[in-house]
Amino acid sequence: MSILLKNGHVIYGEDFEIVKADVLIEENRITKVARNINGGADTVIDATGRVVSPGFVNLHTHSPMGLFRGLADDLPLMEWLEKHIWPREAKLTPEYVKVGAYLGALEMIKTGTTTFLDMYFHMDRVAEAILEAGLRGYLSYGMIDLGDPEKTEKEINEALREMGEIEKLNSERVQFVFGPHAPYTCSIALLKEVRRLASENRKLITIHVSETMAEVGQIAERYGKSPVVLLDDIGFLGSDVIVAHGVWLGGRDIQILARHGVTVAHNPGSNMKLASGVMPLQKLLKAGVNVGLGTDGAASNNNLDMLEEMKLAALLHKVHNLDPTVADAKTVFRMATLNGARALGIKAGMIKEGYLADIAVINFSQPHLRPINNVISHLVYSANGNDVETTIVDGRILMLDREVLTLDEERILDEAERIVEKIR
Amino acid sequence: MSILLKNGHVIYGEDFEIVKADVLIEENRITKVARNINGGADTVIDATGRVVSPGFVNLHTHSPMGLFRGLADDLPLMEWLEKHIWPREAKLTPEYVKVGAYLGALEMIKTGTTTFLDMYFHMDRVAEAILEAGLRGYLSYGMIDLGDPEKTEKEINEALREMGEIEKLNSERVQFVFGPHAPYTCSIALLKEVRRLASENRKLITIHVSETMAEVGQIAERYGKSPVVLLDDIGFLGSDVIVAHGVWLGGRDIQILARHGVTVAHNPGSNMKLASGVMPLQKLLKAGVNVGLGTDGAASNNNLDMLEEMKLAALLHKVHNLDPTVADAKTVFRMATLNGARALGIKAGMIKEGYLADIAVINFSQPHLRPINNVISHLVYSANGNDVETTIVDGRILMLDREVLTLDEERILDEAERIVEKIR
Repeated sequence: MSILLKNGHVIYGEDFEIVKADVLIEENRITKVARNINGGADTVIDATGRVVSPGFVNLHTHSPMGLFRGLADDLPLMEWLEKHIWPREAKLTPEYVKVGAYLGALEMIKTGTTTFLDMYFHMDRVAEAILEAGLRGYLSYGMIDLGDPEKTEKEINEALREMGEIEKLNSERVQFVFGPHAPYTCSIALLKEVRRLASENRKLITIHVSETMAEVGQIAERYGKSPVVLLDDIGFLGSDVIVAHGVWLGGRDIQILARHGVTVAHNPGSNMKLASGVMPLQKLLKAGVNVGLGTDGAASNNNLDMLEEMKLAALLHKVHNLDPTVADAKTVFRMATLNGARALGIKAGMIKEGYLADIAVINFSQPHLRPINNVISHLVYSANGNDVETTIVDGRILMLDREVLTLDEERILDEAERIVEKIR
Repeated sequence: MSILLKNGHVIYGEDFEIVKADVLIEENRITKVARNINGGADTVIDATGRVVSPGFVNLHTHSPMGLFRGLADDLPLMEWLEKHIWPREAKLTPEYVKVGAYLGALEMIKTGTTTFLDMYFHMDRVAEAILEAGLRGYLSYGMIDLGDPEKTEKEINEALREMGEIEKLNSERVQFVFGPHAPYTCSIALLKEVRRLASENRKLITIHVSETMAEVGQIAERYGKSPVVLLDDIGFLGSDVIVAHGVWLGGRDIQILARHGVTVAHNPGSNMKLASGVMPLQKLLKAGVNVGLGTDGAASNNNLDMLEEMKLAALLHKVHNLDPTVADAKTVFRMATLNGARALGIKAGMIKEGYLADIAVINFSQPHLRPINNVISHLVYSANGNDVETTIVDGRILMLDREVLTLDEERILDEAERIVEKIR
């Protein structure tokens, strides 16, 4: 299988240089970027007037939660969780979760996301949906034991079961990740066992850390330290750990994260909508911490649009610091692509020979993207997910001219509506 | 001329109630909203599965500035203005400004904006473009005299000339507005003369007020009071005044604005991108001030997408107040529609019998708007401008199924690219 993208504005290499060029994809890799590539390809796509961008890496989401989109907004966090989200989650069957994952996959494909890091439950069913959708999925089962040793064992067993099921699919594209929910919902015993199992099985770990002030207060009361110091003290941290949120991090926390090479997944939309706070992006970047970007779940965003998320990230930090120079367009674009890929240890997130063919082709013919004065600026500050025209993952075309080729869009949307009637 | 919108989810009345209904438009008014309206109409549009929304009112923009989109970002305000914006504006001919206005009009039509309040120069040429585009435009010439009496007279004369030209067009849809730029760029003499002329000619006034801390400091130094107190003291304020930004307002300022019935046009995207600050939305609403929503110019946003702007408004105030209940979806939707129409004194901004037929029909078949759990929430938190399918202004279809009927889109985009080469 080979694909040739002709004559686009290519965002090339790790400096995101804009070059007019063709991009040749053979099997699942980008093999050549040059002007006027001749010779055959199985599929030729005219990218004239379009932008050929690395696909986006959504570094923190709960993909099936699209089912809950708009069911409850503008509420205090605990009321939102206790009265609206948790009672509905209790009604979710494995089959419902799978439909939610299909819905999330559709949304990601249609907005140029090629890789995502997920946390939810029934992830073996999510894996089936993602395998079919064609996305690159890093899937974690969210473990919560609330300090109950019986629950600890149950959660570990469920994680291992889901890991086994996902490994049976035998796909490079669909990977299991350990996902202890958070230091305030997981016991030390669970966290230590996860650390051991992740190292033993060479899996990544993702965990919510310091999302809200309340959580930091709770951990301080229970352990007399911050969540990051706690995780450091039990030997949990490493370059294979991706912490989500990291809103309420102190100077010492940031130094610890930097020292261990931990990645932080920033979720500006969710942090704003739930009023969690503003993560110290400038301090993290200055300390050399790898920061990626995520949308969080659609119940607290309310979409999975990484193009929109980039704008939110840039704008939030400018106004919060009263400094328009921070979180510039290229920095934010890097967070949404390359930094996410680095966190997951994949050779992706940029357009370059030898890199994975995970690509979004973006239509620049709409008035809000013209004149084409600055491609990266337009993507960050003016584009939105609907501008994505074609999405390629692992050298396979998942969407062409806005038509999703791998999934039955209408059927999935109908099923999602049907499920909501049952869990409302 | 009559148009029948069949079977949509209609956002009805001032409470934005969602009803499944048909909407009948006769001439330029909505004449009937009911189930199964029978009888002929010149045009019938199937709105099944779509949302019939009041069109958006962009209460503060500089529509021709789309030409500068992305030419300079992430810079301190004065460097941005002095090195990038002003030198390029000096190169703009009336013809270039008209092309910029066409570009802005295209963008607004394609994102469901039906009415806008503009400030720029060569507004007689902007008026020609807007008349042709079919939008409802309130157009102000931005006056700046910097305290120079000769310039005061010149600016007044230019405003009156442009007013005369715009009145010659003899269109209800295209109205002249007085636009003294700001208290820090206009002399008291100019402001007083504008106030007199606006009353005499029954025109609205729009002016930038308290956008940045620096501006408030400057006015305090020059006059020993805040910009709002200054305007109050010279008898400038009234219910025909729309102040843009209002970021740095104190308690006394807010009381003054409320007492005079002044409207504030909130511009969250621009205030965030330029790091101007966060306007005290909660305090303004509590005081009963009418607050509308604007995008500001595309050089500081960088688009004119009111759907995106609604999300920015909601999210900014939640995180700034650390309270997820503020700036709820309906409040923000009202700012973007009804409050803007009220500020301009037009019977628009809602779908109801007798109201102007200014309507956006929004496609809800994309995965990011499904399941259709909550229409207003989806519009505020998940939709974007590209979801708008059909735009109707004054009973005339400006865009049908994403195709703009009143303007030659391709020609305008080409001309915009050509102009940028000349002003770069």
